[in-house]
Amino acid sequence: MTDIICTVDIALLTLKDASLHVVLLKRENDPFRGVLALPGGYVHAEEDADTRDAAVRTLRTKTGIVSPYLEQLATFSGPGRDPRGWSISIGYFALVPEAVINQAGHPQVELLAVGRLKGLPFDHQQIVEAAVSRVRNKSSYSSLPVYLCGDAFTLPRLQSVYETVLGEPINKVSFRRKIDELAILEPIAGALETGRSNRPAQLYRLKRQYRDQLSLTDRALNAR
Amino acid sequence: MTDIICTVDIALLTLKDASLHVVLLKRENDPFRGVLALPGGYVHAEEDADTRDAAVRTLRTKTGIVSPYLEQLATFSGPGRDPRGWSISIGYFALVPEAVINQAGHPQVELLAVGRLKGLPFDHQQIVEAAVSRVRNKSSYSSLPVYLCGDAFTLPRLQSVYETVLGEPINKVSFRRKIDELAILEPIAGALETGRSNRPAQLYRLKRQYRDQLSLTDRALNAR
Repeated sequence: MTDIICTVDIALLTLKDASLHVVLLKRENDPFRGVLALPGGYVHAEEDADTRDAAVRTLRTKTGIVSPYLEQLATFSGPGRDPRGWSISIGYFALVPEAVINQAGHPQVELLAVGRLKGLPFDHQQIVEAAVSRVRNKSSYSSLPVYLCGDAFTLPRLQSVYETVLGEPINKVSFRRKIDELAILEPIAGALETGRSNRPAQLYRLKRQYRDQLSLTDRALNAR
Repeated sequence: MTDIICTVDIALLTLKDASLHVVLLKRENDPFRGVLALPGGYVHAEEDADTRDAAVRTLRTKTGIVSPYLEQLATFSGPGRDPRGWSISIGYFALVPEAVINQAGHPQVELLAVGRLKGLPFDHQQIVEAAVSRVRNKSSYSSLPVYLCGDAFTLPRLQSVYETVLGEPINKVSFRRKIDELAILEPIAGALETGRSNRPAQLYRLKRQYRDQLSLTDRALNAR
């Protein structure tokens, strides 16, 4: 049991140019030095409380980002995924607004559209695909896409984010009803988005209790 | 990275006396020798193709059972869950008919109702709870409970299994429609269940392509 490599990898997703992107970093060390890969690293038994803690530490250290939402995705393993030997990687995914990545300003971070990845090392392509699939499935039934929105947003903006994540248009009346059911939003008193051609739109934010916890619905937001 | 213990644990669930039960084994070695626990063991880098393979091997070796359905549940980790040291356990769950467990006839196997567990070692209580929660959620939208049914079953029997897993009655008309949508069953030619007071009922089985793969629906079987 001493010869298994234990790592975490994080698929950090965001919306850019109205499509899902993933954060990649040029690897500083072998194997695959200089190649773009997911942020990842060894589990440190001497300092990590668990693998989630290892993922939080790795993301913070390598990208400067702390994501309010971080979920365990799946564990990937085997003798062939890492040239150093038999390895286990506990995959996590996180969602942040693009502004959070820009503010962190890590010079090595690159954002690539999830549909246009190629040549990722290890099984990182598979990890990203699993993360995107999980996010799409879960977004139908939950408040998950709100983590892509930033602190304040209008309902039309939120609907557009859901539509981008789900990859299809959503009926506005049904969307508003589902968002009401989720009961996650509160209007920001006196805050309106102006400067568009329409009349000013109310800005909303996540209620405090949902900033790091999902709300779920019984029926898909995009159900017909 | 050499000081992390890598194991798998399997929550093998079945229906007994119309309630969900989990397979436990008396531990043969320390820690917790003689205590009932989930079947589990070390990942063997020299022989396992991945952690799923480790789970299949562990289940077969310790219980004599090969489950057609086995799904990765989540990974549990930290310095406190195993007295031997910082450990990672990749949890899996499986579902089999009670007859499969009885036929395997392993003398150490005990079946306990999932609602009545106490004093399980490690974090096995948490693993069982996570498995039961996953099975309940997934059963609403899939063919998962069919794996509890055996090779041949009537539609009333299948409905009763779904109701037990979901913990609530399901409308018969809606259930039949959803099972049709799943398109997983085929009648067994000429096979009827007799001996009940009602007229003989057609026996069904899973279509070959669904014996180790779920079918999913868009809307919950127990939706109102």
